[in-house]
Amino acid sequence: MQSKVSIIMGSVSDLKVMEKAAKVLDEFEIPFEINALSAHRTPEEVEKFARQAHNRGIKVIIAGAGMAAHLPGVLAAFTAIPIIGVPINASLDGMDALLAIVQMPPGIPVATVGIDGAQNAALLAVQMLCIDDKILYEQYVAYKNRLKEKIVDANNQLKDVIYKHKTN
Amino acid sequence: MQSKVSIIMGSVSDLKVMEKAAKVLDEFEIPFEINALSAHRTPEEVEKFARQAHNRGIKVIIAGAGMAAHLPGVLAAFTAIPIIGVPINASLDGMDALLAIVQMPPGIPVATVGIDGAQNAALLAVQMLCIDDKILYEQYVAYKNRLKEKIVDANNQLKDVIYKHKTN
Amino acid sequence: MQSKVSIIMGSVSDLKVMEKAAKVLDEFEIPFEINALSAHRTPEEVEKFARQAHNRGIKVIIAGAGMAAHLPGVLAAFTAIPIIGVPINASLDGMDALLAIVQMPPGIPVATVGIDGAQNAALLAVQMLCIDDKILYEQYVAYKNRLKEKIVDANNQLKDVIYKHKTN
Amino acid sequence: MQSKVSIIMGSVSDLKVMEKAAKVLDEFEIPFEINALSAHRTPEEVEKFARQAHNRGIKVIIAGAGMAAHLPGVLAAFTAIPIIGVPINASLDGMDALLAIVQMPPGIPVATVGIDGAQNAALLAVQMLCIDDKILYEQYVAYKNRLKEKIVDANNQLKDVIYKHKTN
Amino acid sequence: MQSKVSIIMGSVSDLKVMEKAAKVLDEFEIPFEINALSAHRTPEEVEKFARQAHNRGIKVIIAGAGMAAHLPGVLAAFTAIPIIGVPINASLDGMDALLAIVQMPPGIPVATVGIDGAQNAALLAVQMLCIDDKILYEQYVAYKNRLKEKIVDANNQLKDVIYKHKTN
Amino acid sequence: MQSKVSIIMGSVSDLKVMEKAAKVLDEFEIPFEINALSAHRTPEEVEKFARQAHNRGIKVIIAGAGMAAHLPGVLAAFTAIPIIGVPINASLDGMDALLAIVQMPPGIPVATVGIDGAQNAALLAVQMLCIDDKILYEQYVAYKNRLKEKIVDANNQLKDVIYKHKTN
Amino acid sequence: MQSKVSIIMGSVSDLKVMEKAAKVLDEFEIPFEINALSAHRTPEEVEKFARQAHNRGIKVIIAGAGMAAHLPGVLAAFTAIPIIGVPINASLDGMDALLAIVQMPPGIPVATVGIDGAQNAALLAVQMLCIDDKILYEQYVAYKNRLKEKIVDANNQLKDVIYKHKTN
Amino acid sequence: MQSKVSIIMGSVSDLKVMEKAAKVLDEFEIPFEINALSAHRTPEEVEKFARQAHNRGIKVIIAGAGMAAHLPGVLAAFTAIPIIGVPINASLDGMDALLAIVQMPPGIPVATVGIDGAQNAALLAVQMLCIDDKILYEQYVAYKNRLKEKIVDANNQLKDVIYKHKTN
Repeated sequence: MQSKVSIIMGSVSDLKVMEKAAKVLDEFEIPFEINALSAHRTPEEVEKFARQAHNRGIKVIIAGAGMAAHLPGVLAAFTAIPIIGVPINASLDGMDALLAIVQMPPGIPVATVGIDGAQNAALLAVQMLCIDDKILYEQYVAYKNRLKEKIVDANNQLKDVIYKHKTN
Repeated sequence: MQSKVSIIMGSVSDLKVMEKAAKVLDEFEIPFEINALSAHRTPEEVEKFARQAHNRGIKVIIAGAGMAAHLPGVLAAFTAIPIIGVPINASLDGMDALLAIVQMPPGIPVATVGIDGAQNAALLAVQMLCIDDKILYEQYVAYKNRLKEKIVDANNQLKDVIYKHKTN
Repeated sequence: MQSKVSIIMGSVSDLKVMEKAAKVLDEFEIPFEINALSAHRTPEEVEKFARQAHNRGIKVIIAGAGMAAHLPGVLAAFTAIPIIGVPINASLDGMDALLAIVQMPPGIPVATVGIDGAQNAALLAVQMLCIDDKILYEQYVAYKNRLKEKIVDANNQLKDVIYKHKTN
Repeated sequence: MQSKVSIIMGSVSDLKVMEKAAKVLDEFEIPFEINALSAHRTPEEVEKFARQAHNRGIKVIIAGAGMAAHLPGVLAAFTAIPIIGVPINASLDGMDALLAIVQMPPGIPVATVGIDGAQNAALLAVQMLCIDDKILYEQYVAYKNRLKEKIVDANNQLKDVIYKHKTN
Repeated sequence: MQSKVSIIMGSVSDLKVMEKAAKVLDEFEIPFEINALSAHRTPEEVEKFARQAHNRGIKVIIAGAGMAAHLPGVLAAFTAIPIIGVPINASLDGMDALLAIVQMPPGIPVATVGIDGAQNAALLAVQMLCIDDKILYEQYVAYKNRLKEKIVDANNQLKDVIYKHKTN
Repeated sequence: MQSKVSIIMGSVSDLKVMEKAAKVLDEFEIPFEINALSAHRTPEEVEKFARQAHNRGIKVIIAGAGMAAHLPGVLAAFTAIPIIGVPINASLDGMDALLAIVQMPPGIPVATVGIDGAQNAALLAVQMLCIDDKILYEQYVAYKNRLKEKIVDANNQLKDVIYKHKTN
Repeated sequence: MQSKVSIIMGSVSDLKVMEKAAKVLDEFEIPFEINALSAHRTPEEVEKFARQAHNRGIKVIIAGAGMAAHLPGVLAAFTAIPIIGVPINASLDGMDALLAIVQMPPGIPVATVGIDGAQNAALLAVQMLCIDDKILYEQYVAYKNRLKEKIVDANNQLKDVIYKHKTN
Repeated sequence: MQSKVSIIMGSVSDLKVMEKAAKVLDEFEIPFEINALSAHRTPEEVEKFARQAHNRGIKVIIAGAGMAAHLPGVLAAFTAIPIIGVPINASLDGMDALLAIVQMPPGIPVATVGIDGAQNAALLAVQMLCIDDKILYEQYVAYKNRLKEKIVDANNQLKDVIYKHKTN
């Protein structure tokens, strides 16, 4: 089945962070693909990937990278489809990657999420796909509600534990 | 005409930054609206705004805020449509706003652009609207090309200036 | 017994930090309650909680959160009772949470303590309750004195150890 | 009339920031006093000030300081009444003062507000005084409502301006 | 005359910084060229530039860029000749550009100089060209000596001024 | 024997860092004392300590503290003898303690060493005592020479290891 | 008259900061000298200066430098007399100079004062000279008292102004 | 065989980082030497090393240091051959070393690589040596190609793993 979202990371070592994005897309049954290509070490492959993405039917790209993280920006330079950037903590608590991804010059945006925030990157991709997909939109609303219920349940359990603790 | 994009900012004083977003949307002839509402000082209005946005036909929200910039995150809490966050430099070179916007917890993403990056926020909104709009996509590709041509022209002028300088 | 202080945190995982606040309130025999609710994932519950707090007799709220820590500010938006914010170290050494809590815009303050400083948050709540409670004030003065004595004792033991070390 | 709140700053040069606190207290008709005393250059005066504050009827102290801002912490060491710390931007964008005020050790809290946030410091003092003062509490709620109305009005004017701009 | 060094910058607005590099190269009579091309807005031109540089006889590239400064890294990806990166202060005091340039991943180095350090970038280029050029090496040693003499002279003048000040 | 140097730290937990200062003073056979007293939790003891230090014959005070590290500055307020401040890493990699110690206001200096730099603090104390003590000065020069020899020896061993590695 | 303190700075442009040190030493009638020599551009002069300082009767060196501020550390490497380092704000708000001066490795301390803190550097030099000079010590105590009186006077004037403002 | 590149580090403890540079030079069969000498603890040795380097045939120096990392700058002061600086993470995540190395004053450049980036330092040295060595240049191009192939292979394996995961 043709991928709608493409997950790409600067190094295979980023997989432990980026697989959280894959898990979310699986949950929403959105077809996706994964690649590990480096803006600096395999620039032709990255360029080729970016140039072909739109014609291959890719709607959104999620790109994770650490350090001087140029991958999301380089993709944004070569394609017009939206790029979601995930700063990966490989040094300096991830501050270098955050700044290298988010501080794009006027004209070429990258939609940046938090450090190691691959899960949110995938949810943002889902939100983008919802714009013209009412069914997916309802699924996303339901996902947010389940998230809320989990937290309300956890809160009730927390209060039970503390109530017991106080009455004992 | 019904707005597709909603620009919202935490304070009227943010207008000088956020009007760059309006200008881009005007250029693409995308109908939009502007509001100045504070997540902290007018929380009910912000909540009401967020809850009604989807039913009013808003597809994307661009939210700018400075300091402990909660506006984009609060909007993201109350609506399922994508939120683009613009950190505004009101203190600490904008680092406080950047971190308060981008470092969202798992489950509720905000698509963050650079500090004072309202122009890129609007371009990102356009990119999201392109996902199912081929005509707009072509317009966006043309916009990127014009941007490129401007820079190539400026470069040629720069080289002329320097050539003359050297030969004189 | 009716709670006077309400401890709230953005995630159950913050409990290991926030239970230090509970321990202090227990020591002063101040009735309190604990909740784990997220400004982003359960915004309605947080709003409802904040709106009802004053009428339920809550005098002070202690709110802990990490990353883009909006919980204290969102509570401050919906209630007039004082909010004490505890930045929790979940990334960037807690600097993101500190800035997202302390840098509130004019009009809506949050009383911020140090990173992971839940113990101090509870002591600050006690100080606020002391304003019109002479007995509690005396207890707080006594608490400070015991703290001082512990340190003076520890210092005496330290000097003994070093004296023995030198004379051996 | 006896002061309930005491504003103190590390240097007369901090007055331009700290007078915003005075203005808020005036608005709420809360009696207050102002001093400029340095934790480092007039330590005895600061200590004497702190020791006598409670007996003089002071309920809350607002202390502003820049650089290695020790004043709020030193006051907190010598008195049991709550201290609100205002980090003043005198170097490093105020980051030095923020950290020197907020990162207090366990046992001695300082209620810290944002950099140069003297207005919020006064509002926080008002909130603390509200705990056992229903009339003041209603005034504070009214203040928050006026703040909200001002922003809603500004937003309406903003939308008018933009509507006119679009229809012309 | 064929250029040996190529100065390239991400935006024409960087010229006021980068012309310091041109001035140094002029002083050493090293033929050079200047371009303003953006890694993000004109990626094909940047790639073409990088790929052809070696065959056109370019020995060293000096690349200046601000914000999420990808230009030096992108050039380094497409050519094997050494890239000297100049972080330009366009936001965050230049810290974003510094980290986006210097923190390159293993395999693709960029020789980074200080923020706005275009003069040093040119001197570093000269040093690289000295490796196999004894005459240029002697010129560089002479340049360093003149620099030293200027400072020694300035110091003597400074001491004269102070001596006169003291004896008056 | 009467102490010439006084080591003081904000908490007994700082001993693991501060004992490096004790070790150096032992090596130079300079009599010293150690105390653990908190500027915030035992302010009277700290004040008393500072006021009496000069009369007790103390020539230099080495003060270590973490977080909002006020101890060195508070000592400097109450005594005219030189204070050496040691920022201790208890949070934020020690940056909070560094800024809270080094950024003293005009009039009251603290001689600050690096984060956790207790060894250097003691060497600086020795240097101060050398000013009018020629014998100690010679001992300090000899110490520096031994340090140098150790490094030269280590370098020779390093080169041997690498030489063997290459010839095998 | 033979200088006891030597003020040295990395560049003549640092004079506007460093002359504050000269003013303090003048006030205490301590003979001093001033030099502007660069650790990087005139290394031989700096080394020669450092090596001869002790024999020329210099007791303390005050060294100011900005950016990658190596001057204090390089002096400390070549002489055994105490070095006071003044980080000068020439970029990055002075944070680069602060870290480059204060974070010295074990064995070679630099007594660091705050950013642009030349006045405190001179006071610290005075304190060091006080160690064996009772008369200077009394002068220093008197200086601190005058400083205190100035602040107490300013505070009294401040309270007068505010009292008049309130009664009008 | 005579060394062309000299690796030098501030402390033997930096070897675990700096040996990555040695490994790269070995791979390119470039003769090199290794020394551990401290700018602060063995300044004469460092100066002598720097002064003799050019005459001994050294073409490039790679210098690694942590904390207030002066070694690369001090070498650059005493020799005209290019210095590559490697900031080593010994405190503050390496930010102190990075700033102390990269922020050199005008006139004396250091070619700085990323924190702990010794591998890239060696590759940069190779690039410099390539300027007049066509054979080495071809080897370097081949090295970049092998790097690319490794990443393309790893990417293919990654996609296989994920394909299998999806079809199972």
